[in-house]
Amino acid sequence: MNILVDAFGGDNSPIEIISGVVNALNESKNLFNVVLLGDEIILKQLLSKYHYPVGRLLIIDTKEVITNDDHPVDAIRGKKNSSIVVGLKNLNSEKEAMAFISAGSTGAVLAGAVLLLKRIEGINRPALAPLLPTSETESVVLIDCGANSECKPEMLHQFAKMGDAYAKVALSLVNPRIGLLNNGAEEKKGNELTQNTYKILREDHSINFIGNAEGRDILSGNFDVIVADGFTGNIALKSCEGTALMMFSQIKYGIQNGGIRAKIGYLLLKPVFRKLKDTADYSSKGGAVLLGLQKLVIKVHGSAKSQTIKAAIFQAASLVEKNLISKVAECMERIDKK
Amino acid sequence: MNILVDAFGGDNSPIEIISGVVNALNESKNLFNVVLLGDEIILKQLLSKYHYPVGRLLIIDTKEVITNDDHPVDAIRGKKNSSIVVGLKNLNSEKEAMAFISAGSTGAVLAGAVLLLKRIEGINRPALAPLLPTSETESVVLIDCGANSECKPEMLHQFAKMGDAYAKVALSLVNPRIGLLNNGAEEKKGNELTQNTYKILREDHSINFIGNAEGRDILSGNFDVIVADGFTGNIALKSCEGTALMMFSQIKYGIQNGGIRAKIGYLLLKPVFRKLKDTADYSSKGGAVLLGLQKLVIKVHGSAKSQTIKAAIFQAASLVEKNLISKVAECMERIDKK
Repeated sequence: MNILVDAFGGDNSPIEIISGVVNALNESKNLFNVVLLGDEIILKQLLSKYHYPVGRLLIIDTKEVITNDDHPVDAIRGKKNSSIVVGLKNLNSEKEAMAFISAGSTGAVLAGAVLLLKRIEGINRPALAPLLPTSETESVVLIDCGANSECKPEMLHQFAKMGDAYAKVALSLVNPRIGLLNNGAEEKKGNELTQNTYKILREDHSINFIGNAEGRDILSGNFDVIVADGFTGNIALKSCEGTALMMFSQIKYGIQNGGIRAKIGYLLLKPVFRKLKDTADYSSKGGAVLLGLQKLVIKVHGSAKSQTIKAAIFQAASLVEKNLISKVAECMERIDKK
Repeated sequence: MNILVDAFGGDNSPIEIISGVVNALNESKNLFNVVLLGDEIILKQLLSKYHYPVGRLLIIDTKEVITNDDHPVDAIRGKKNSSIVVGLKNLNSEKEAMAFISAGSTGAVLAGAVLLLKRIEGINRPALAPLLPTSETESVVLIDCGANSECKPEMLHQFAKMGDAYAKVALSLVNPRIGLLNNGAEEKKGNELTQNTYKILREDHSINFIGNAEGRDILSGNFDVIVADGFTGNIALKSCEGTALMMFSQIKYGIQNGGIRAKIGYLLLKPVFRKLKDTADYSSKGGAVLLGLQKLVIKVHGSAKSQTIKAAIFQAASLVEKNLISKVAECMERIDKK
C-alpha cells in the first residue's frame, strides 16, 4: 500500500514532515510505502541527510502550496499543481494509494476531499472525527468536528453510523455507546436539529444509541461516540482544548510562584504531570480521520511535528489493514433490524 | 432592598439554602433583607437553631415545589403556589423586591422569568450569563449559555449589548472586548447565524467587538464577553466543565497510583491545587445572571451549598447597588454612533 503524505502543509513543513516519514519507514516492516508530495528539489536535499529504505519512498513533484490564507474551494480549483490537489487526485485514481495525510489547511483538505474523492454510497458529506482521550487508556470519537457547519438530521444519522464503524475498528469495541451532543440529557432537550435527530437515532436499532450527551459528558468515559453537527462539534472540541491549556498554565503559574516548596513538589509529581500532558496532547498520537470517503484521509494538527506525522502514518496503515473503509460502507448498507 | 431566595430549589435545599441565607445576613450590614420562599413550618423549624437578625428575614409561605422532572412551562402554569412562581410574582409586583435567587430547575426559572417578569425595552428574550474564570483574578462573561436554543442574529446582537453592560458593571471594565463564538477566527467562518451576526456586531460601534472567538479562546483571557446562542453556549460551558473535571480526576488517579513520591509531591503542591480548584469552581462564587429583565434573577447551580447561596446574595446586592438593570436598559437605548 502507498500512503501519501503532504510535505508542504502545516506550520513545521517540510522539515518535521520529512523527519516523521523517515522515522515511520525506518521503524516499520515492509507493510507500506510513502509517497511524498512537494517540491522535489527541496525534498531530495532535505532527505539526503537521512538513512532510510530508499525504495519505499517515492516523491511526486508539486510546485504549488496551499496556505491557510487561501480560500479553500478557490485554492482547490486554482492550484492544480499543489501537494493537496495532486495528492488527492492520486489517491482517487491509483489503486495502490490507500491514504492521504496532511497537516495543511483544514478547509482546503476538506474542500479537496469533497471535490476530488468519491464518497461511500449513502453518505451525503464526509465528517471529521478525532479521537479524544477520556483517560490514560480510553478514547471517544467526536464526529463531526468541523467539516459541516450546517447539518440535517439525516446527516447526523450518517455520522452516528460512521462513528460506530470507526469506534469498532479504531477502538476495538464490540458495541460502541453512541450519544448525541445536546444541551441537556432529557429526550425533549435541544434545538430543532437535535430533537429531530434524536428520534431517528432512537429508531435505528443497528447502533447502540444511549441518549443525549451534554458537553460535560464528552470526556467522561460514559460514551464511545459523540455525534454533533460540525459547528457544535468544533466548538466543543476547542472548548476542551482551551480548558486543558488554561489549567496547565494555572498549574505552571502556581508552581513558579509557590517558592521552593512548590518546586520540590513539582519535581516529585513530574511523572504524573508528564502522563497528564501525554494524555491531553491527543493530536500527537495521529490525526482526525475524514470519514465517508472511498479512500482514507487523515488531517493532522497544523502544528504537527515529526512524532505526530509518524503516528499518523502508522494510524493510516493500521486503519487500512483493518479495512475501515469497507466497514463504514457495510454499516451504511446494513438494514435496520427492528 | 429585599432579596428573594427560593428555599426549595436545588439538590441541597432547604438546609444549605437556609444556612447560606443566615450567614449572608450575619456577615452583612443593614444593606438588604432576605425573603425566603418555602414551607413556613419547615423553614421556621430549621431557622430556630440559628442566631440571625430576625427583623431582616421574612418568610413567604409556599407549599408547592417545582422539581427537575416537571415540564418547565406546565409547572409555572400549574404550580401557582410554588416557591418559584410566588417568588417571581413578588419580584414583579413589589417595589422593594430587587432580586430573585434560585438553585431550582433552570428550565422552570427561565420559563417563569419569561412568563411572569417584564423585559427591558428592546430585548426579545432574556439570556443566561455566567462568569467563567480565565485566571485566578480575571473572568469572562459567556452569554447566552442555555436560555435560548434557537436564536436569530438580532438576538445575539442584544446578547452582545447586555454582555457589554454586565461586564462593565460586574468586572469594572471600561471597554469590554467582545467576541462571537464561532468555529474559526476568520470573518467568513461559521454557520448562517454566526455569519449574519458577525456583520451586525461589526457595524455596532457602541460596543468593542473584536471578532470571532473559537472554543479555545473562551478561557484564554483574550475576551471579556463571549456571545453565543444558548445551545452552543451551553455545550461550550459544559465542555469546559467536563474537561476540568477529567483533568482533576486524572491528577488524582496519578497521585493515588504514584506511590509515596507522588503523595509527598501532592502535599507540597497542595496550595497550588487548592487555588486551581477554587478558580475552576466558579459556581461557588455566585450564580449566572439572567439578563434582559426589569428585575434581577440569579440562577445558582443545582448542587449549590451554603457558601454559594451566601455568595449569590452578596452578588445580587452588589449588582442592585451598581444599578445593573438601568445600565442594561441604557445600553439598549444607546444610538449606534457610527
